Amino acid sequence: MALQVGETAALSKTITDDDIHTFADLVGDHNPVHLDDEFARTTRFGRRIAHGMLSASLISALLANELPGQGTVYLSQSLRFVAPVFPGDTVTARVTVTKVREDKPIVTLETVCTNQRDETLIKGEAVVLIA
Amino acid sequence: MALQVGETAALSKTITDDDIHTFADLVGDHNPVHLDDEFARTTRFGRRIAHGMLSASLISALLANELPGQGTVYLSQSLRFVAPVFPGDTVTARVTVTKVREDKPIVTLETVCTNQRDETLIKGEAVVLIA
Repeated sequence: MALQVGETAALSKTITDDDIHTFADLVGDHNPVHLDDEFARTTRFGRRIAHGMLSASLISALLANELPGQGTVYLSQSLRFVAPVFPGDTVTARVTVTKVREDKPIVTLETVCTNQRDETLIKGEAVVLIA
Repeated sequence: MALQVGETAALSKTITDDDIHTFADLVGDHNPVHLDDEFARTTRFGRRIAHGMLSASLISALLANELPGQGTVYLSQSLRFVAPVFPGDTVTARVTVTKVREDKPIVTLETVCTNQRDETLIKGEAVVLIA
């Protein structure tokens, strides 16, 4: 069945210190904001935060795993980082179909990440090619 | 010294199969486009591709490691995925300062990822808060 505007899906993950270290090593992002307690205490956040792109990547996982699902390919993603993610926070990514093109297998989705207190962390939009 | 419009920095990384599996496990993105040779052969790409967000995350690393550097915090990132990254490709992320605000410690950078054949993979813009 074709996708419909308004369809939505969500995925949650608790961001652990292990995840932060794995991501830092994988992409080479050793920003002390993420890794160094002493440095992080001097920042506006007062303690270490997770990499924004780690939480943002949950959107990619959700698009691939569920909506639109297997074989989805990214065309674009915009990301506004609204609030920080702290180690131990549970991030919920939610995607909602906002546009389905008639002429091409291209779908636009609103993408939002929130935390366990329902605070918005990341807002944006994805455009994907569906399989 | 204050940042100047036109300042630029780059970072390269070869995306291995190990990297792709590490990223897939970390964020839970097991899209067969990335992991399953047989499925990938049936796609428009003809073979497995790396996760777009893995290459995009190199931009985050570059912003944190070099320009603007330590303590940089993301406000926003836009990403247009122009061409796929195949396992074994070397991705070069490049950021170039396009705007420095006078009133706030906020910098805008053009962000581009290219491969070893100098083909553009990802285009976009980052807005960051500098430490």
